Amino acid sequence: MTRWTVMGEKAKRELLAARAFLAAVAEPPAPALAGFVAERGPCRAVGLIQREKAPPDVAAEVEARRWHVSGEQLLAAAESAGVRLVVPEDPEWPRGAFDGLSGARSIDLPGMAEPIALWVRGKAVLSEAAEQAVAVVGARAASGYGEHVAAEFGHELATAGFTVVSGAAYGIDGAAHRGALAAGGLTVAFLACGVDVDYPAGHGRLLRVIADQGVVVSEYPLGTPPRKHRFLVRNRLIASVGQATVVVEASARSGAANTANTADALGRPVLAVPGPVTSKNSVGCHGMVRSGQAVLVTRTQEVLEALSPLGALPAVEIPAQHRRTDGLHPDARRLHDALTGTDCASADELARDSGLPLGKVRALLPELELAGFVTRSEGGWSATE
Amino acid sequence: MTRWTVMGEKAKRELLAARAFLAAVAEPPAPALAGFVAERGPCRAVGLIQREKAPPDVAAEVEARRWHVSGEQLLAAAESAGVRLVVPEDPEWPRGAFDGLSGARSIDLPGMAEPIALWVRGKAVLSEAAEQAVAVVGARAASGYGEHVAAEFGHELATAGFTVVSGAAYGIDGAAHRGALAAGGLTVAFLACGVDVDYPAGHGRLLRVIADQGVVVSEYPLGTPPRKHRFLVRNRLIASVGQATVVVEASARSGAANTANTADALGRPVLAVPGPVTSKNSVGCHGMVRSGQAVLVTRTQEVLEALSPLGALPAVEIPAQHRRTDGLHPDARRLHDALTGTDCASADELARDSGLPLGKVRALLPELELAGFVTRSEGGWSATE
Repeated sequence: MTRWTVMGEKAKRELLAARAFLAAVAEPPAPALAGFVAERGPCRAVGLIQREKAPPDVAAEVEARRWHVSGEQLLAAAESAGVRLVVPEDPEWPRGAFDGLSGARSIDLPGMAEPIALWVRGKAVLSEAAEQAVAVVGARAASGYGEHVAAEFGHELATAGFTVVSGAAYGIDGAAHRGALAAGGLTVAFLACGVDVDYPAGHGRLLRVIADQGVVVSEYPLGTPPRKHRFLVRNRLIASVGQATVVVEASARSGAANTANTADALGRPVLAVPGPVTSKNSVGCHGMVRSGQAVLVTRTQEVLEALSPLGALPAVEIPAQHRRTDGLHPDARRLHDALTGTDCASADELARDSGLPLGKVRALLPELELAGFVTRSEGGWSATE
Repeated sequence: MTRWTVMGEKAKRELLAARAFLAAVAEPPAPALAGFVAERGPCRAVGLIQREKAPPDVAAEVEARRWHVSGEQLLAAAESAGVRLVVPEDPEWPRGAFDGLSGARSIDLPGMAEPIALWVRGKAVLSEAAEQAVAVVGARAASGYGEHVAAEFGHELATAGFTVVSGAAYGIDGAAHRGALAAGGLTVAFLACGVDVDYPAGHGRLLRVIADQGVVVSEYPLGTPPRKHRFLVRNRLIASVGQATVVVEASARSGAANTANTADALGRPVLAVPGPVTSKNSVGCHGMVRSGQAVLVTRTQEVLEALSPLGALPAVEIPAQHRRTDGLHPDARRLHDALTGTDCASADELARDSGLPLGKVRALLPELELAGFVTRSEGGWSATE
């Protein structure tokens, strides 16, 4: 394949038109077509399709739209809308990000395929945005708790230099994008419709802000309406661009579970945020942890640990609240315990109460006094406050 | 050892007095003394201690109280308070429940020891109550959420025929006991003080209700005040009587974590209930799940699964919400998707929109019509509501 940088403008244009055609002529994912393009190259593939010389599996995928798609027209419309087509030959293509998908071959991901091209709207460079990226996904009908946590994770991941990848849906997705935006970070929204379609309708402004600071991306040509199956198909792009997928809230049946399954099949860590067991929004997350598909995470630091090049999670460090008596030997602590609540006690009484030998009590008391834990008065020993 | 049932009253009394003495003469856990009693038998052990003929490690454990304890007096005081002493020779002893503790030998449980005798207040039979028992423990400063969940688990475990074992503390413990009581079930409270001491003060009434329906149990003689270290020592009894330990809420540093550690060292399942990551009360539970010490559980059914004799957790079944189109072939669903939002579409249009070959669309439409998913009118095809 000719390097993009040394390719003439005309050759680039032909290549873009070819990929625009190929991306639109079959409904993604089109595993036969993707394999055919990878094998023959995009321009040759277009020629063979248009001359009805494609193999039967490819022909079946493109039959319905073969005579209805024009790559040139799609490109022209995108240009006037300020949308660009990013293709694998372009340095802006997130190299390697979709490799795991080029497997109708993979038994874990039947029917999957890498995208043939991506429509991109926005100021960020997709390849750079995808370099260090974490997917944050979850329920649309999220709880206030879930949105709060998603926004926190989005904000902290962005602050840590990670791009937040999500699907621009209501609920968790939107909160994660907003968190990243508020941190001045990069965020990528993969849509299940054209990048010019404001879906969901209430997120039109959010999508414009994402495009201003990050990118809005889709496999579908401008104007393509969302469809149920397109959300599932789109999810594979989120799962494969994210180096890990964090599921913040997910009900028993959710698109987030689908994204998590894909991330899992791709060998990417799946991380699930727990929540109240009384909330239906966390049922999916808890199920993923119980089945072993996901690792439970409670804060961004734990997400970063899952991404550490060592692969292993470092030991969990629970920040402990320290007590004054923590450093004491267990016997000294037992003696100190026996002093609590008594006003003045003799060594003898303390030995009986604590069960420690009198000799040990006599040896420990002056040490505790020196350390400021006990005081001696005429009536006996007392604990200091 | 002579069988309890054929033992004369005098022999029983002597045995009880000996064990009452032994249980009080050293501060639990007293591994040397426990080993000594197991080896020599309680009455011989008392004689050797009183004649100062015990080995040095035993002598050190009993030195402070040797001349201050009378088994007979302890028994008499208990009798007049309606409290009985349950000893390993008695059929009421929960046989096997403490076996894992008789290990100053165990490297996982250094300094542990089985109890020498147990003071019991209440109407239930300890051995029967301990037969099928689950420990439910957690934070004293629990949230409303935590108390709600603990009460639910307590209620459901009791309903399922399990005894709820806990520590009668404020917060999770109290809620778990109350749940079991409300279900008319059995519950056992292990105290870190004498069974006649109302601790915590506000749980005096609860302790009386527990005694009415279950049992209140302690290693400590009547009147013994609680001490910090006694809570930790007491926790080992909760962990070993419970066939599993459920931690409902636990902050980073908590007694519940200590109970969980003991249960873990004893090889009993530790189960942790998740909660909001924004709650400090769930930090300990999440940490246990992350470290692999605990299995995440969200409902009683999952606790019972962990106790199943098969040992393995059955696959997680997430109750799915079914959609009308669930049974459809993916191609049929894609076609149905394409119909959504259009009023009247031709097979040709539907093929282009869905990307399915026209032949397939023409074959699928009548099938979908028969199944009631689409209707045909003069203008074309529409989806039914």
